[in-house]
Amino acid sequence: SSSKNIVIIPGDGIGTEITAAALQVAQAAAAQSGSSFTYETKQAGGAAIDEYGIPLPAETIEACRKADGVLLGAVGGPQWDHVAPELRAEKAILGLRKELGLYANLRPIKVFPALAGQSPLKAEIVSAVNILIVRELNGGIYYGARQEASVVNGVEQACDSEMYSRPEVERIVRLACRAAIGRKGRVTSVDKANVLATSRLWRKVAAEIAQDFSEVELSHMYVDNCAMQLVLNPGNFDVIVTSNLFGDILSDEAAVLSGSIGLLPSASLGDGTGLYEPIHGSAPDIAGQGLANPLGTILSAAMLFRYSLSNTQAAIMIEQAVEQVLNDGYRTADIFQPGFTKVSTEEMGRQVIARL
Amino acid sequence: SSSKNIVIIPGDGIGTEITAAALQVAQAAAAQSGSSFTYETKQAGGAAIDEYGIPLPAETIEACRKADGVLLGAVGGPQWDHVAPELRAEKAILGLRKELGLYANLRPIKVFPALAGQSPLKAEIVSAVNILIVRELNGGIYYGARQEASVVNGVEQACDSEMYSRPEVERIVRLACRAAIGRKGRVTSVDKANVLATSRLWRKVAAEIAQDFSEVELSHMYVDNCAMQLVLNPGNFDVIVTSNLFGDILSDEAAVLSGSIGLLPSASLGDGTGLYEPIHGSAPDIAGQGLANPLGTILSAAMLFRYSLSNTQAAIMIEQAVEQVLNDGYRTADIFQPGFTKVSTEEMGRQVIARL
Ligand SMILES: CC(C)[C@H](C(=O)O)[C@@H](O)C(=O)O
Ligand SMILES: CC(C)[C@H](C(=O)O)[C@@H](O)C(=O)O
Repeated sequence: SSSKNIVIIPGDGIGTEITAAALQVAQAAAAQSGSSFTYETKQAGGAAIDEYGIPLPAETIEACRKADGVLLGAVGGPQWDHVAPELRAEKAILGLRKELGLYANLRPIKVFPALAGQSPLKAEIVSAVNILIVRELNGGIYYGARQEASVVNGVEQACDSEMYSRPEVERIVRLACRAAIGRKGRVTSVDKANVLATSRLWRKVAAEIAQDFSEVELSHMYVDNCAMQLVLNPGNFDVIVTSNLFGDILSDEAAVLSGSIGLLPSASLGDGTGLYEPIHGSAPDIAGQGLANPLGTILSAAMLFRYSLSNTQAAIMIEQAVEQVLNDGYRTADIFQPGFTKVSTEEMGRQVIARL
Repeated sequence: SSSKNIVIIPGDGIGTEITAAALQVAQAAAAQSGSSFTYETKQAGGAAIDEYGIPLPAETIEACRKADGVLLGAVGGPQWDHVAPELRAEKAILGLRKELGLYANLRPIKVFPALAGQSPLKAEIVSAVNILIVRELNGGIYYGARQEASVVNGVEQACDSEMYSRPEVERIVRLACRAAIGRKGRVTSVDKANVLATSRLWRKVAAEIAQDFSEVELSHMYVDNCAMQLVLNPGNFDVIVTSNLFGDILSDEAAVLSGSIGLLPSASLGDGTGLYEPIHGSAPDIAGQGLANPLGTILSAAMLFRYSLSNTQAAIMIEQAVEQVLNDGYRTADIFQPGFTKVSTEEMGRQVIARL
């Protein structure tokens, strides 16, 4: 295949350190698998507000559109919390999702045996966790019409609207069904069909789409029940597919079950460039001190190789090296426990490279 | 005070057994505290569909309006899952909330030391859980305008709308602040203000209302973060106040942390009659066999004494008796473990009465 180009968006806080470490791992993994890629660095979030006055400069969008994949650190921080709403750092995230048409957010949530003890759940419950959450990322109440607080007939009120169309549901459920093949073949579609019209449409379309996948078993679950089952019986889930808002809540709930939120990657996919980022935030309080855990970003780079660079070999190589580094006892500050080897962000990256 | 009258709505599935047990406990507790009440039984849910053709007969609404309080078992079951949407059993619940103006759902989530071992969480995390979730129950996306799936410009789509007005937010936040006094004095207001206009109104109004409560410390949290913190650090929460939809999800998530969902009560309050019900469902699979746990309903009756019958003495009496019954080793099937005394629904009620 022709030469690949990726965009790195370090973002804010620990973003610079973790993307630097992940880039080095990615370059080493590419080389070892006989390939290579070029990259350019672009700004988004607070860093872009400071430099360009806006959180998502056109230049960044353009570069991302042309690239084969985007690796993002994290955006946001207290110094940008009080800017005007349309300039807030998270607009960069929402903007990128829309501009790049990233309609599917994939979050694999698995437990690293070496870290299972750090889960808030009992060992016997957490050991079986291996969930892929597929969150719709380009629609729903995130992008519906809104009425900011304003006085109507003497009463101050605000309004948001949740909208879903058949094609939006079809494409995300199809993606979830495809992802289930090669896993346990089970898809749980999560909605609130006993209350919401959008959920009733969602449920109907999901059932229709699943008919096309004879290897996939689809079931439906209410979001409140799912929030319970994730804690009670997380090992029962395989693939979960759900709306933008429910996915936001459930994927964060599911993430903490693993006990290793600093290690969890994500991929946001559409018809063009894919975007890859760890699920944790920009942690401004520990930025610049080498304390950040780069493994979530490194595993995001693995997803980038798999889904955007067609280099499954490099993806597997990285994933196995991360597992090995943990088994060998290396820990950044966030997951450190007595008896293990404490390493910096950079050193953790080097230890992964040494095991590729 | 004049003579009190309550309405009992057994509902479906195990509803009949658990309300029968709770009624006997309530009568005994009233007598022991030198009071009494009259009651009448009304239908709602599947039972009402079978008898009246609709899930919430006018007669039931009228009786509830006139009563001092309503004790409900649970509604719904598979035999009513395929009736027309407007006849579904949960319409009874949503209808009662609206007809009685029940704008506040209170769910105390505490851990019974005798049952803490049944929590999916590690003991050291679960032991500190003592949360009161205050969910807005009369507004938001539950009651906003909806467009059922229909073809618009050739595309099938559906729409729901979330609406909140200042008075709606004011009254629920005020109630949460009042509830926090006498607890730890901390209120966490949960929203998605980085995305939703309704959440931005909610956050602004909540901050204003909290100013009137100098003993209360208000903080704001995003719903996705709250879904994480409930699992990671549930002991850090005191009172949580949130919207109808977020409350639906978070209160069920929080409920399972305790390990004793069969014991959790709830109160739904408005300006008139209050409604009290356990948080679990109608469990049709075990109905009529004496297997159901009546303690959630019995503790709901305690809340009824406290909030609707001004009989705090009876409330405390019931709560202490339930704790004692558990400490004495009595268990219904759902919470039974070897070494304990297994009792039926009815017998569990009698054991509580014996300890009043
Ligand atoms: C920053 C915020 C708008 C975003 C979201 O709600 O989608 C975040 O919580 C996430 O999940 O990526
Ligand atoms: C039955 C359903 C409509 C209801 C709700 O969503 O409010 C239930 O989940 C609850 O929490 O009482």
